Amino acid sequence: MYSFKNDYSEGAYPRILTALMESNLVQEDGYGEDHYSRQAIELIKQKLGQADVDIHLLTGGTQTNLIAISAFLRPHEAAIAASTGHIFTHETGAIEATGHKVIAVETADGKLTTEQLQNVLDFHTDEHMVKPKLVYLSNSTEIGSIYNKEELEQISQFCREKNLILYMDGARLGSALCSSENDLKISDLPILVDAFYIGGTKNGALLGEALVICRDSLKDDFRFHIKQKGALLAKGRLLGVQFLELFRDDLFFDLAMHANKMADMIRDEIRNAGFTFLTHSPSNQIFPILPNSIISELQRKYAFLIWEIIDSGTSAIRLVTSWATKEEAVLEFIDDLKKTIIKL
Amino acid sequence: MYSFKNDYSEGAYPRILTALMESNLVQEDGYGEDHYSRQAIELIKQKLGQADVDIHLLTGGTQTNLIAISAFLRPHEAAIAASTGHIFTHETGAIEATGHKVIAVETADGKLTTEQLQNVLDFHTDEHMVKPKLVYLSNSTEIGSIYNKEELEQISQFCREKNLILYMDGARLGSALCSSENDLKISDLPILVDAFYIGGTKNGALLGEALVICRDSLKDDFRFHIKQKGALLAKGRLLGVQFLELFRDDLFFDLAMHANKMADMIRDEIRNAGFTFLTHSPSNQIFPILPNSIISELQRKYAFLIWEIIDSGTSAIRLVTSWATKEEAVLEFIDDLKKTIIKL
Amino acid sequence: MYSFKNDYSEGAYPRILTALMESNLVQEDGYGEDHYSRQAIELIKQKLGQADVDIHLLTGGTQTNLIAISAFLRPHEAAIAASTGHIFTHETGAIEATGHKVIAVETADGKLTTEQLQNVLDFHTDEHMVKPKLVYLSNSTEIGSIYNKEELEQISQFCREKNLILYMDGARLGSALCSSENDLKISDLPILVDAFYIGGTKNGALLGEALVICRDSLKDDFRFHIKQKGALLAKGRLLGVQFLELFRDDLFFDLAMHANKMADMIRDEIRNAGFTFLTHSPSNQIFPILPNSIISELQRKYAFLIWEIIDSGTSAIRLVTSWATKEEAVLEFIDDLKKTIIKL
Amino acid sequence: MYSFKNDYSEGAYPRILTALMESNLVQEDGYGEDHYSRQAIELIKQKLGQADVDIHLLTGGTQTNLIAISAFLRPHEAAIAASTGHIFTHETGAIEATGHKVIAVETADGKLTTEQLQNVLDFHTDEHMVKPKLVYLSNSTEIGSIYNKEELEQISQFCREKNLILYMDGARLGSALCSSENDLKISDLPILVDAFYIGGTKNGALLGEALVICRDSLKDDFRFHIKQKGALLAKGRLLGVQFLELFRDDLFFDLAMHANKMADMIRDEIRNAGFTFLTHSPSNQIFPILPNSIISELQRKYAFLIWEIIDSGTSAIRLVTSWATKEEAVLEFIDDLKKTIIKL
Repeated sequence: MYSFKNDYSEGAYPRILTALMESNLVQEDGYGEDHYSRQAIELIKQKLGQADVDIHLLTGGTQTNLIAISAFLRPHEAAIAASTGHIFTHETGAIEATGHKVIAVETADGKLTTEQLQNVLDFHTDEHMVKPKLVYLSNSTEIGSIYNKEELEQISQFCREKNLILYMDGARLGSALCSSENDLKISDLPILVDAFYIGGTKNGALLGEALVICRDSLKDDFRFHIKQKGALLAKGRLLGVQFLELFRDDLFFDLAMHANKMADMIRDEIRNAGFTFLTHSPSNQIFPILPNSIISELQRKYAFLIWEIIDSGTSAIRLVTSWATKEEAVLEFIDDLKKTIIKL
Repeated sequence: MYSFKNDYSEGAYPRILTALMESNLVQEDGYGEDHYSRQAIELIKQKLGQADVDIHLLTGGTQTNLIAISAFLRPHEAAIAASTGHIFTHETGAIEATGHKVIAVETADGKLTTEQLQNVLDFHTDEHMVKPKLVYLSNSTEIGSIYNKEELEQISQFCREKNLILYMDGARLGSALCSSENDLKISDLPILVDAFYIGGTKNGALLGEALVICRDSLKDDFRFHIKQKGALLAKGRLLGVQFLELFRDDLFFDLAMHANKMADMIRDEIRNAGFTFLTHSPSNQIFPILPNSIISELQRKYAFLIWEIIDSGTSAIRLVTSWATKEEAVLEFIDDLKKTIIKL
Repeated sequence: MYSFKNDYSEGAYPRILTALMESNLVQEDGYGEDHYSRQAIELIKQKLGQADVDIHLLTGGTQTNLIAISAFLRPHEAAIAASTGHIFTHETGAIEATGHKVIAVETADGKLTTEQLQNVLDFHTDEHMVKPKLVYLSNSTEIGSIYNKEELEQISQFCREKNLILYMDGARLGSALCSSENDLKISDLPILVDAFYIGGTKNGALLGEALVICRDSLKDDFRFHIKQKGALLAKGRLLGVQFLELFRDDLFFDLAMHANKMADMIRDEIRNAGFTFLTHSPSNQIFPILPNSIISELQRKYAFLIWEIIDSGTSAIRLVTSWATKEEAVLEFIDDLKKTIIKL
Repeated sequence: MYSFKNDYSEGAYPRILTALMESNLVQEDGYGEDHYSRQAIELIKQKLGQADVDIHLLTGGTQTNLIAISAFLRPHEAAIAASTGHIFTHETGAIEATGHKVIAVETADGKLTTEQLQNVLDFHTDEHMVKPKLVYLSNSTEIGSIYNKEELEQISQFCREKNLILYMDGARLGSALCSSENDLKISDLPILVDAFYIGGTKNGALLGEALVICRDSLKDDFRFHIKQKGALLAKGRLLGVQFLELFRDDLFFDLAMHANKMADMIRDEIRNAGFTFLTHSPSNQIFPILPNSIISELQRKYAFLIWEIIDSGTSAIRLVTSWATKEEAVLEFIDDLKKTIIKL
């Protein structure tokens, strides 16, 4: 059974474990004040082309989202998200648990537009309603789509005009930036958004997300919030060493490139076989719509999620690739798929 | 410069990193549903002699405390802790951030007594005050003391009679249970307390605490709370592999034993030299009171915390040992201490 | 300018003020432990035909909702509400501020159905999502519709089967129960719902809502929650005296009856004139759809809300009547409406 | 049985009820946007000699404290209070329920000093601890003492230098400002503190506290917080009419003066009889220490609280006077006290 269920089925990219081994017995200060974390942060700033950002290394996406959003907002302020957004339904109400409403917007493709944002602002007219204050985007989105530069620029400008905080969930930022359709550079982000995170967990690390705070007014006292939410690791070096390895060279991008390439191979094959997709997803998650008979056959050798029932005979499935996805497994999957199609 | 600052200055016990390496490319389910976590949990249950407990693997002490306490309490209920308790002043108000007051009790030695608990109950008489509901103990305490079996039995019985939840913070449980003065067995804990955690971070793991929930009424839906607080690791295997290694044999205890032995050596030497201690701490943290001149001299080669100013000429320092503390470093420290004493 | 903007434009029904005057200088215990509050609670229990409920007198609807819901739910549990429900968008995120998500359901008429509730349960499958636990109904709803007995029985049975808490917001319960289309008795409520409140503010009181807790497991320690949320009035007598007056005889129902009668008169006239309504609302709020020219003309003499733009030429307005609405004002409004129709 | 239990045993000063009667049927906008509230706020600004403050009318002290403090603080910030402070133990953890720690300081007389505040700042050194940000004072304090101008000026200057928010709980501000020992003017307050409230509930109103926000940065969006916490009354006129009446002339001060005078009469008599007091309380609460035999005798005719057991033979009681305390009752109490003393 080979798994395409997600991009966190394996441990870490081996070079990262090696780095942990090599640094293991060096004595370091705790709580993120070690040399590895400091160096990793400097390296990321260099990649971003921005010295004037604050970077904090955290352990997971939900954790990063809830700490950032609760630190950025006052009690009456709310976040706006696509209804597919991770914070809206897949974080067990983590944002609400910190006191803030998440205002959901139905979208066609998991991406927000300025029109939708304007509608939200228009609806919230007075103090009987929450005050929409933060725009939450995921890139790539939870259904595999990505924002292009123009789209992000429009939203960025809108947020500035309306005094909204623009926050990007980058759990799969690597895959988004390495998509064949992408025209954003990582160095565009500090210019366009107020805060975002660079996802390590789904791109080669054991765990780890690098939160980048760009807007000055959001930076103060941030480490208090990390500690209060139980996210300040005693051995912060664990995160430092990993991000140092990911950004020492282009490993972070190489790994995402590989994941995308694996997804591209499967996507092309399925498209060529005449099937359609639930969403346009030029990243490491794809959602083909297949006859249930083919799905059943594939499930004998492969693990993946049934994403949505389309009709009585077809369903959309989710296939996810990662840095760890083996090319031979992809080729075998393609081969099995072809055989199944022929058989049926 | 050799550090006695804390028990998390190094990475993990090497065998643990090896286990991570060896399991690294096996595909596993996410979010703690991997085979390693399941096995680790089974092993811990065996060590506890209790099949009927729920165990959850989490990443840090503050995180574990806040998730457990907020899951266990209703909004008007409060925790009682020693004023030295970690939740009272060293977690940035993490418990209060989930809505609950921490009622602090001044203690002589960091340990709570039933008399003190009764005083708290007597003071809280009606609905204009919070309802004290959970007793928070640390073992070993933040100042190195430990509970013996009789003390814990008394508190346990008191809590049952008063319908209080008894929770033990075991960030340094290994050191407590391996103290030369200890008469508690790890298998006593599920019988005496309602929930506790076994600290891995300070005893050989990269990170990780195993929360054990003993009382049935506290078990329901606990994974929701873990997810909501951002603590459900996508790669939960990282915790599973580590605890599996710690409890596969007696590694967890062997590591704590080593830490204690290193502390014992230093403690004995300081005592023999005629100095006293701030607290009676038969575990891996010691708090000798030394002339400032000696402290200054030691600071040239060793890192440690100045814990408290005693008077104009003397201060209490904190020395912490761990699984990673080298015996030769301890011997050298002792030697340096002796030389310093002679010199002054 | 006569106002049909809401049902809280005036003070209290005069008899209530008289009762406050007469009781004013009697010394009473504070915090709801006065004789008036106790008597009022006994009287309400008699009207409900239920001795075995707990009743608490509070000052407003949002306050009552947030105290009840936050007291009833554990941190990971959520409320389900119609998207028109007061808690979803008109309480400034009050429920979320206590840590709980509100799951909104789009409805045709402001009323929830068991099918919709089942859909919510089906969607929330595991610990990555909140756990739907409480069903929030308003009766009458925010858009004037009411639940009949069969509808409420179905929801009640569903909630029992699924172990959901059924909570009714009764800000306008008087108007609902006195609607010509109503077949529910106030004594049905303790049998069908787990908790509800009887709205005084919008039915003759200066302020005041009587929260009735029917399910035993929701009763414990409730006064702690009231105090914690800042809702325990020092002079609780203010609420006791008012509810005593409202329920000493049938004043509560008489006032609602009057409000409904005034709405009926306007509704009939508008219907007879050939206009339609945004919703079917047999209570004290009506939402006629009128040409903008007529609306403008009416606005010269009457205050009311523009509720929704229907198209370029017509809008829905909201007209609200109350115990204080004068019949002569209604007749004059009808007369003015007729004249306006003729003119245009 | 005559009650000296508290200053909220009766309803409202009669003139206030008359004003409610007279205004009762005037139609007004809801939620504090009525003419009475606006006028009351203007009047209070005049009394304060400050046009540039924001004033909000709320219903109770705990409510006001929790809304203000939670609106003013970021999640990691804490309030500092005397351990006798109302927010520390008599609000059922209301502040903690909004997520903020209350740091308690033991005081001799219920009053904070700059030395104590400096100690708190010194103790809170880094992000592992909350950040002390708001200083909570009560004037008069919960044990009857008052701040003089010099004391308040010192604290004010200290707070400015340390960038702390200075907040005064004025539940009994009337009594403090009308004390024979007071040298503060109400117009000093906007200059010296960042926010405070003028207590109506304990000084003649049915209910009502006027929160005055002086520091500009604390003013934004405050009505959102009021609504979110369930404190925006539909019939805000109820508060407006009352404060209008209290500040139309000097009624607010006259009522407090009466309360103090009644307390003075009792205090003088008890002092003359040779008894001492638990605290120096030149306001409307006094805490005489009396033999238990005298206390028992007095309890036959008078209601009051036993405040503290002093020793086996004596206790401190609390006697509270108010605008409603009758001089004849005071004279009778004094007479009964004298007789009791003679008898024993």
